[in-house]
Amino acid sequence: MAVPEWWYVLLHPRPAYLIVSGSGEDVGVMTASWVMPVAEEPPRLAVAMDKEGHTYSLLRQAGEFTVNVVFDDHLEALWLAGTLSGWRVKDKLRKAGIKVTSSKKVSVPRVADAAAVIECRLWQALDVGETALVIGDVLDAYVLATEAFNEAYGWVLGKAKIPLHLSGRAFTLPGKLLLAGKQRRQ
Amino acid sequence: MAVPEWWYVLLHPRPAYLIVSGSGEDVGVMTASWVMPVAEEPPRLAVAMDKEGHTYSLLRQAGEFTVNVVFDDHLEALWLAGTLSGWRVKDKLRKAGIKVTSSKKVSVPRVADAAAVIECRLWQALDVGETALVIGDVLDAYVLATEAFNEAYGWVLGKAKIPLHLSGRAFTLPGKLLLAGKQRRQ
Repeated sequence: MAVPEWWYVLLHPRPAYLIVSGSGEDVGVMTASWVMPVAEEPPRLAVAMDKEGHTYSLLRQAGEFTVNVVFDDHLEALWLAGTLSGWRVKDKLRKAGIKVTSSKKVSVPRVADAAAVIECRLWQALDVGETALVIGDVLDAYVLATEAFNEAYGWVLGKAKIPLHLSGRAFTLPGKLLLAGKQRRQ
Repeated sequence: MAVPEWWYVLLHPRPAYLIVSGSGEDVGVMTASWVMPVAEEPPRLAVAMDKEGHTYSLLRQAGEFTVNVVFDDHLEALWLAGTLSGWRVKDKLRKAGIKVTSSKKVSVPRVADAAAVIECRLWQALDVGETALVIGDVLDAYVLATEAFNEAYGWVLGKAKIPLHLSGRAFTLPGKLLLAGKQRRQ
């Protein structure tokens, strides 16, 4: 019995981000939901990327990338950056309605109106299948949507409308608050 | 300027799962939110785990583990499995209210009343910092909460109450549906 082809959607919904790399006229963007922190010490994150993708090619050349957290006003950008090919569509950023600007610590750009940005330097790219598991050292991380973030508690529910990818065209948003640890207080 | 210590919560909220390994009297469970699919071909997923943890130790011995998707009725189990140490608390499963049963393809158990289970064999464990990035081959994946899952669309919103970890004791649930791709239909 083969593993069912839908196995990975069991690990959704999960947040979707815009990954940017490249420079000058050749900037690439892709949507990724297979993204996670992997270590605090040193700060590192991982992104699974299609080895044939345009953004991955740029990332390997630049050795740097940005992970851009966006809110639901970027839903179409997330969709288009995830479905248009940067090899075929030369003006993919414009078509996806994505504007970029300079980053702080890396030479590759970030999304201009992102909610938060994590700037990374490629540490390792591990061949794991049709994808490469890109592991990056976090060089900087900052919040632009400051009204939606609290340094002690993280994203503020109801304000940080981070699209979570479910499957296909379907996304969802964070919903109500659940507080764990009730048994401990008894 | 150092990277702010809260950088990784920028990549939350994200689903939290119960990871199980070990056998017989020595079964371990831990909560992990740093989990993601990494490849479809072959089916593989990754979990970042504390190298000093009890479940990681068992996983290295067994070479197998299960990723258990649970709903909000397991919120306290997620909290306790994420805060109690399996080294110090010998009856951690009982304390966390977690019952396990036999898996299908692997010798390590799964959570008895999970919503879905992904059975994995360790492929690689990469030292990435205070954590190991555990990459597993998916040997089987199945849904137990079948009323909350659709093979074509994935988890059904409103039924699949998968806790998403925000920070500390705070979790959230998937909220309303967003459909992308509207621009394409014009």
